[in-house]
Parts: sequence; structure tokens; C-alpha cells
Amino acid sequence: MKKIINNSNDVVKEMLQGMEKASPQIRYIKEHDVIVRTKKADKVAILSGGGSGHEPAHGGYVGYGMLDAAVAGNVFASPGADAVVKGIEAVDAGKGVLLIIKNYSGDIMNFQMAKELAEMDGAQVEYVVVKDDVAVPDSTYSAGRRGIAGTVFVHKLAGAKAEAGGTLAEVKAVAQKAIDNVRSMGTSMASCVLPGVGKAGFTLGEDEIEIGMGIHNEPGLERTTMKRADELAKILLDRVLEDYDYSGSEVAVMVNGLGGTPLMELYILYNEVEKILSRQGITVYRSLVGNFMTSLEMPGCSLSLLKLDSEMKELLDAPCSTLGWTQFHV
Amino acid sequence: MKKIINNSNDVVKEMLQGMEKASPQIRYIKEHDVIVRTKKADKVAILSGGGSGHEPAHGGYVGYGMLDAAVAGNVFASPGADAVVKGIEAVDAGKGVLLIIKNYSGDIMNFQMAKELAEMDGAQVEYVVVKDDVAVPDSTYSAGRRGIAGTVFVHKLAGAKAEAGGTLAEVKAVAQKAIDNVRSMGTSMASCVLPGVGKAGFTLGEDEIEIGMGIHNEPGLERTTMKRADELAKILLDRVLEDYDYSGSEVAVMVNGLGGTPLMELYILYNEVEKILSRQGITVYRSLVGNFMTSLEMPGCSLSLLKLDSEMKELLDAPCSTLGWTQFHV
Repeated sequence: MKKIINNSNDVVKEMLQGMEKASPQIRYIKEHDVIVRTKKADKVAILSGGGSGHEPAHGGYVGYGMLDAAVAGNVFASPGADAVVKGIEAVDAGKGVLLIIKNYSGDIMNFQMAKELAEMDGAQVEYVVVKDDVAVPDSTYSAGRRGIAGTVFVHKLAGAKAEAGGTLAEVKAVAQKAIDNVRSMGTSMASCVLPGVGKAGFTLGEDEIEIGMGIHNEPGLERTTMKRADELAKILLDRVLEDYDYSGSEVAVMVNGLGGTPLMELYILYNEVEKILSRQGITVYRSLVGNFMTSLEMPGCSLSLLKLDSEMKELLDAPCSTLGWTQFHV
Repeated sequence: MKKIINNSNDVVKEMLQGMEKASPQIRYIKEHDVIVRTKKADKVAILSGGGSGHEPAHGGYVGYGMLDAAVAGNVFASPGADAVVKGIEAVDAGKGVLLIIKNYSGDIMNFQMAKELAEMDGAQVEYVVVKDDVAVPDSTYSAGRRGIAGTVFVHKLAGAKAEAGGTLAEVKAVAQKAIDNVRSMGTSMASCVLPGVGKAGFTLGEDEIEIGMGIHNEPGLERTTMKRADELAKILLDRVLEDYDYSGSEVAVMVNGLGGTPLMELYILYNEVEKILSRQGITVYRSLVGNFMTSLEMPGCSLSLLKLDSEMKELLDAPCSTLGWTQFHV
């Protein structure tokens, strides 16, 4: 595997250094692998994070209108509670801190522990848990559904609410509303390769794909033959629509590349997704097509659907400026 | 090769449909495979384009602050002159049209022919040719240097100048200044696979890379063994710095993924690039790290350096809102 790295032990630190250099808006706290905004914002602070290898998540979402801090673990490994505490301390402006946690056992444990530790020091901390992946009920690293790309919608909506001056309870309520209304489903055409491992986590046949694979090479729902874009759109969407009632509603759609799939294919898939939604009377209010929560160089994608109400539409459209998602309407 | 497509003959049309659906700002003229802004802007119009497979280039750069139209050919094939003429007609607001052409023989021929045809109909058309790739003096599809990712800087600067009300001569001068001051150099770890071909254009060994490869699988400068990120940064940068004098200047840097390389690796590479520049007294004013001009799912990257003066810095920082590059400073 040909990776553009120096040493597999240093990939996270060197990547975060690169991120810091790429944006005047963020600062990298090297001792704890935390990315924070350069200037502390006088508002409810939002912190997320988790294992690395999902870039731009989460460091790439730190900035105006989204996160205040992102805590990075090693590749596919949860950050320690102490690092999360440092992140909380760095961004707490006295108005409370919301932790947005993807549902993986390590993250849950360490972020919850961090909340308790920070509270002992007087911080006011709340958290929400994202479990948008409808593929499997439990997984290798999670009790309950996994948190995947739908998390980025949670960052965006909660971030906009905080930026608009929402209280901790209000920001948490928006985050929870986003979580309650988002569902995702992915597929993968090959394993990704961890820098420290150097070989694929599993093997798929020449014409084989895995439906419902996780973003850490975790098993999905089934293996099947490669499908046409229209078939794949239907397979992913069917499962999402079976799980939650989107009928007659307005939605935000994310077609998320896992890292190795060209944008051309993501747009082709989105074209099919939109056709199916349109036939079912579901209106796309906004869509995002690109690499938002990746799995290193994994070829594949996930589809996320967020049901919107008028408040959520406004928050979704609010400006934001981060490495991973910048929004500005003319 | 597992591609998320329906039929290899339809990939361009279906992709452009997906793009149109993904942005309220753009409209797809299906008959000619042209992406234009939804609302014609009352200013000098800027049109670019070329073969598909380089997404987000160029349809993804149509929008406020960048292009008015992008004309898409088949995968890695130049669009016809008639389509370019239709694009010119669609965006010409009577203040002149600038064509930004990447230096490939087919594009040069067809865009120049389109200029002549449009002028016969009374349009005022100018063009510039981007040839930023310092790898090879001539190539499979080009007489003279190839145009690659540095083109996106030309879109951005010319786009900002046009948005600010510049005349056709002024917009062209800015585009030419960007061209004169930008150099790029790439490397690839594997061939990409054209949807209509279904197999790799060439093969590299397990530990082999090609330095200076083009974005259409064209041969580069040399094949060598895989390098560390710091070595690779030096190889790419050395050639760029040998070619043009950046000493003591401020630059914009683009570390561009070719489609199959994870963002993690691009940031690690950028970290090394910035270190070398800093040691040489070259100041990074802004940087872009991501997939800006791809080669389908090719693993690899290119590095572009743009020397800036104060006008260029201002134009670079001007807001823009497109699928491929949105900029908005808080």
C-alpha cells in the first residue's frame, strides 16, 4: 500500500499540523491532539471528535458556524478522556459545552468520563450521541447503531444554533432533533488500509461489494455483487426509508464519499437518489455531495437523509466557514 | 473495477444532472453538456471546461465569484466547438467573455474555433491558456506544458475580478497574471480507470510511483520507488522552485488530491510542503488542501504554487460560492 506518510506512528500529529497550517481559523493543541478555534467564541461551545482517518471529520469542522473543538484519537481509535477534558477547558466560555459523540463504545466511555471530570472542575457539560447508521443493530465497536456521516448534519445544526446565541439546553435540543431525524446507510467496494497495519482489513471479490459496512471496516449487512448506480441508490434509500417516515417531508441529503470514490460517481448516485425521493413525494431542500466523513481511502459511499422543519432549514442555511464545509449564499 | 455508474456512455450527462440537482446556483444545458449559472450575471462572463473526469473541475466551479459556464466533454475528451459556442451565448451579458483553456490540443482547437464562431455572431471573446504543469515540455495530448490544478487559481482570481466589475481586458490580464505566476507538479501511485474502458491505463509496481504524471494517465518524468511524505514534498517542490523564482514572496499553495488519496495524506504532505517553503523564506498566504482537479479515482496528488501580489491576495480572498470552492471569511 502506497501511502503518503512519513511514519505510521506520526500520521495523526502530522495531519493535524497540516490542518492547522491550512486554516487561519484553527489552532492545534499538540499535547492532546485537539483542534480548537483560534479565538474562543463567546457562546455555548461544541466539541466533537473520535478516531482519526475520517477526515475532514472532525478537525475540519472546527470553525465559524460549526464546532469549537475536535479531539482526535489515533486512526480508528477513541481519544482519551484527558484529551477531551483539555478540549472542553480550551473552549468553555462559561456558557456550557455540548459534546457530540458518535456511538462507539470507546468514544462513549471516554467522552462521558471527560464530562464528569470537567464538571468536577465546574464546567457545565451536556452530550448527545449520534447513531444514524441503520445498517446493523450492534457492531464490532458499538452497542446499538453506529454513528456515521449524519453526524456532520448534527455539527452543522447545533453549530448554527450556538452561533445564534442559543443556550446550552437549546443547542442540545437542536442537536437531539437532528439526531432524531437523520438516518444513514453505506456501502463499500473494498477495505481501507490502516497506516500502522499496511494491509487490507478484509477482502472483497472482483465484483463484490458490502452493503452497510461501517467506517472502520466493520461488517455490514450483506455481501452482494456490484450494482448499477440506480440499483445501489434504491438499496441504500429503501433501508433508510423503511426505518423512518420521511413521507411528504423536506429533507437534506448527503451523498458522502468514503475517500476512494470519485466525485463523478457520487454525483451520478445522487442523481438517482433524487429521482427516487422525488417519485416518493419527498422534497430535497438541500444536498451535499462529497467527502464529509471518510474511511481513509475506502471506495464506497454513504447516504444520509435528514428530515427538516423550518427551524432546521434556517440552521442548515446559516453561514459556516470550516475546512470541511463552508457555506455562504449569495 | 467497481464503479458506481449506470452505463459508461451516460456518465457525463448523469453526473451533470446530479451536479445541477446539488446546487440551486447552477443550471445544466443538457443538449450541449454545459453548466451555467442559474441567473446570468451582468458582468464579464468567464467560461472554462474540458474533458470530464476531473470533478469538481469544471462544473463545480460555476457560481458566484468564479465561472459563469463550464463546458464538459466526455471523460478525458475535449468538448466540441459547438458546445463551447452555446456556452458563450448562454452567459454573454454583452460585456465580453473570457475563455480559460487548459493546454491540451483538443481544447485549444475547439475553444479557439468557438471563439471565432461566437465573434462572427458579434460576441466579444478573449482567451487565456493555462500550462502550469512543469513535469514535461510536451505530452501525449499537448504541445507545450499541460494545464492542471493551477487552473483553479486562474478561475478564482479572474472570477473575483469579473465579479468586482472588471472589464474584459482587466479580467484577462488578471487571468494571465495568475497563469504567469503559477506552477504545478504531480505524482501518481496508480492509473485511473476510464468508465468506458474498464481497466487501468498502465500498471505501476507494488512500491512504484510515477513523478510528473498527467491527469489523463499521460506519462510523467520518471518512475521511482514510493517515497516518504517529506521526500515527496521535496521532489515536487524542487521542480516547481527550479522553474520559477518564488524566493522571498508570498504564495498560495494547493495540495490537490487526484481522487483516490485520503485527505489525511494530503494534509501530511502539505505539512511537509509548508516546512520546506518556510525554510526557504517563502511565506504561505493561503492554502487549499483537497480534491480540486481530480483524475477519476487516481491515487496521487499535485502541488501548485501561485506567487501573489497585493491585488492577487485580495482577489484570492474575495468570497465565492461554488460546489468545488466556497470561500467566506468571518
